[in-house]
Amino acid sequence: MQFKDIIEKKRDGGKLSREEIEYFISAYTAGDIPDYQASALLMAVYFEGLDREETFYLTDAMKRSGDVADLSAIPGIKVDKHSTGGVGDKTTLVVAPLCAACGVPVAKMSGRGLGFTGGTVDKMEAIPGFRTALGQQEFEEIVRSVGMSVIGQSAHIAAADKKLYALRDVTATVENIGLITSSIMSKKLASGSDAIVLDVKTGRGAFMKTLEDARQLAEWMVDIGKRSGKKMAAFITDMEQPLGNGVGNSIEVMEAIDTLKGRGPADITELSRQLAGYMIYIGGQASSFEEGIEKAERSIKDGSGLRQFRAFVEAQGGDPAITEDPSLFPQASVVLELKANGGGYVSALDAETVGKASQLSGAGRAKKEDPVDLAAGIILGKKAGDPVKEGDLLARVYANDEGKAKAALEVLESAYVIGAEPPETRPLIFEIIE
Amino acid sequence: MQFKDIIEKKRDGGKLSREEIEYFISAYTAGDIPDYQASALLMAVYFEGLDREETFYLTDAMKRSGDVADLSAIPGIKVDKHSTGGVGDKTTLVVAPLCAACGVPVAKMSGRGLGFTGGTVDKMEAIPGFRTALGQQEFEEIVRSVGMSVIGQSAHIAAADKKLYALRDVTATVENIGLITSSIMSKKLASGSDAIVLDVKTGRGAFMKTLEDARQLAEWMVDIGKRSGKKMAAFITDMEQPLGNGVGNSIEVMEAIDTLKGRGPADITELSRQLAGYMIYIGGQASSFEEGIEKAERSIKDGSGLRQFRAFVEAQGGDPAITEDPSLFPQASVVLELKANGGGYVSALDAETVGKASQLSGAGRAKKEDPVDLAAGIILGKKAGDPVKEGDLLARVYANDEGKAKAALEVLESAYVIGAEPPETRPLIFEIIE
Repeated sequence: MQFKDIIEKKRDGGKLSREEIEYFISAYTAGDIPDYQASALLMAVYFEGLDREETFYLTDAMKRSGDVADLSAIPGIKVDKHSTGGVGDKTTLVVAPLCAACGVPVAKMSGRGLGFTGGTVDKMEAIPGFRTALGQQEFEEIVRSVGMSVIGQSAHIAAADKKLYALRDVTATVENIGLITSSIMSKKLASGSDAIVLDVKTGRGAFMKTLEDARQLAEWMVDIGKRSGKKMAAFITDMEQPLGNGVGNSIEVMEAIDTLKGRGPADITELSRQLAGYMIYIGGQASSFEEGIEKAERSIKDGSGLRQFRAFVEAQGGDPAITEDPSLFPQASVVLELKANGGGYVSALDAETVGKASQLSGAGRAKKEDPVDLAAGIILGKKAGDPVKEGDLLARVYANDEGKAKAALEVLESAYVIGAEPPETRPLIFEIIE
Repeated sequence: MQFKDIIEKKRDGGKLSREEIEYFISAYTAGDIPDYQASALLMAVYFEGLDREETFYLTDAMKRSGDVADLSAIPGIKVDKHSTGGVGDKTTLVVAPLCAACGVPVAKMSGRGLGFTGGTVDKMEAIPGFRTALGQQEFEEIVRSVGMSVIGQSAHIAAADKKLYALRDVTATVENIGLITSSIMSKKLASGSDAIVLDVKTGRGAFMKTLEDARQLAEWMVDIGKRSGKKMAAFITDMEQPLGNGVGNSIEVMEAIDTLKGRGPADITELSRQLAGYMIYIGGQASSFEEGIEKAERSIKDGSGLRQFRAFVEAQGGDPAITEDPSLFPQASVVLELKANGGGYVSALDAETVGKASQLSGAGRAKKEDPVDLAAGIILGKKAGDPVKEGDLLARVYANDEGKAKAALEVLESAYVIGAEPPETRPLIFEIIE
């Protein structure tokens, strides 16, 4: 097979066969196809697209390019949850304990973050002693005994995706539905769960800015997951403004704990309730979505979710006392306040700009090698629609460097628009695609 | 300047600025832009195109990426001639002496061939002793004293083109009018002549199969040349069947000599007359195209063209006796004949297939490193439109290897279609674009 012919076929609008796609992935992963040919194919794909069948073949080949976890030794329907990424999204830390508390095992591999805050793995590392680098055996044992575990994604999961994504990133070939779908789904499928509930974000702080784009991605991912034999659903949820009030690493873990205690912000509480409810339902521990929501709710009220969280933290070497004593988290040495210089309503609070401010405070990485400041971040005092008076506290920036704090504050200020009217309210959950 | 932004701009249909294009070429030539980013840009260009202004900037940047010859020390208007390549095209060897005989200096740098036969440089090397690797100074001296010289193209001419073309070749990004134009014209412009007459081939044996594509390429090249301050014209000529009767290296030199003696095949004689006439006109040695043709004709009749050819051969170390004694050329040890197995007319003679047969005989290269058999090739006894009887000699294959001769003969047979009717005649020259 001449790889140039495959490039030419796609360039001319042809449909690639399963064999051609598998050859591409296996030879590219092995280093037998050079980057310059792969990037030409990627750009041809950008223009000519992949249909769902091609995307399925690509996803499947990428999944098999690395380790594929086998969780069949763990009883029950293992349910995974994946968010396409947003600002302040700490739902995994709430949802997983609620599911586990209801008997649905959650075995989650999570990446490190690149961007506004760390990833789930970085956030968990804000808990003193918490280990995220567990071997597959220990991971499975914790899921079996405690009901859930969260570990760092193995470097050997979907090896092709790692290599391809790095190439797409520098060749302006990220934005293609087939490539995005296969990148996300190859890793999810390799993680070995039986069911996957996706949270596809839409709005200013999301990768998919429009509802239309988010819906398309959700539909494609659900379709590819089903073709791969998984139970699937995708929530399309709002990311116009940040989710909850806290943005950062330890800041988000604290908010997740608050939510498990029943005193979290309304939006994060509601989204967690719904996502966990669906996962409990799809995991076979509720006969309907509604019953799943009720069970999730009960796990908050009766404290079983929080107990589950503590057991999980302890199992991975973390100090469970952090659920009662926030001073055990890394502390910020610099705190700056942003105050309103006019009155009215918060008519917009741009999630992406808040995310950039969070990154500048030290909470997120600009480059893969950068460290993450676990104490840094932002706590929002006012959100979109809130009435404000001049001088009101809008938000606080936490950092360990005066310069970073100031840079974050300056950007954060531009995220707030104070106007005479509140904005139109947006739904928290736009739709669920099954 | 972030190169990814340039890729993205072109991907999104934007027009690249002169600065962006110059950055691309200089940084890519210097190795500061990796092949995988360059190939992504090339594929984006394949889809979104380059306009003529972008193509001019690209051509100019590519020209300046290597040595640019300065021929200003040679008096007169130096005229270059370039063919986009065809089967049996030995016009340069006829046209250059005719021009030089009329006082138009021709300083030609020519590449080695890849494909059906060698390039002009390979063909000249069929003359015993002939040297094509001259320094710039000796080259200019010969043009000044003898009126013409043909040397191998320096490796330092349009360095970016060499690197880019190799990349395009393996990434399915050859076929774009802007890229093709800049590749050809950057080298022509760097060669330093004041005027360029292009021979753009069209038909089965040409790179541009259709008249429409050939016309577009001709128009673009003429436009880019004029923007660069050169006098320009492009002939669009037929390459449905081979030009002349001989295809090979020494075989073509012999036919060129015959043509200079006034006994060449009709098509090669006519095309040489017209091309040389135009070059004499554009070179200021005739007041009209018609007068140029008359002068070219006279140079054949009075033997001044042939004398010019001998002087040129001698100046470059070759044996001028070859013009009178063809046995001085390398000889083929195997000669096979193709005979007609039916009667009627040659209703088609596919140039590309004849070219492949020539290559198989040993006359052309499959890979850059391959040697060329200077004696190998084909002499056609019948051409399209000729009446044939069963058993008539159609063509002879010359080779130095029985296996190669047979392989060539087999392919050559498939190039001939004998039918009841002669084909529609095609013009030799479709049009001239000025």
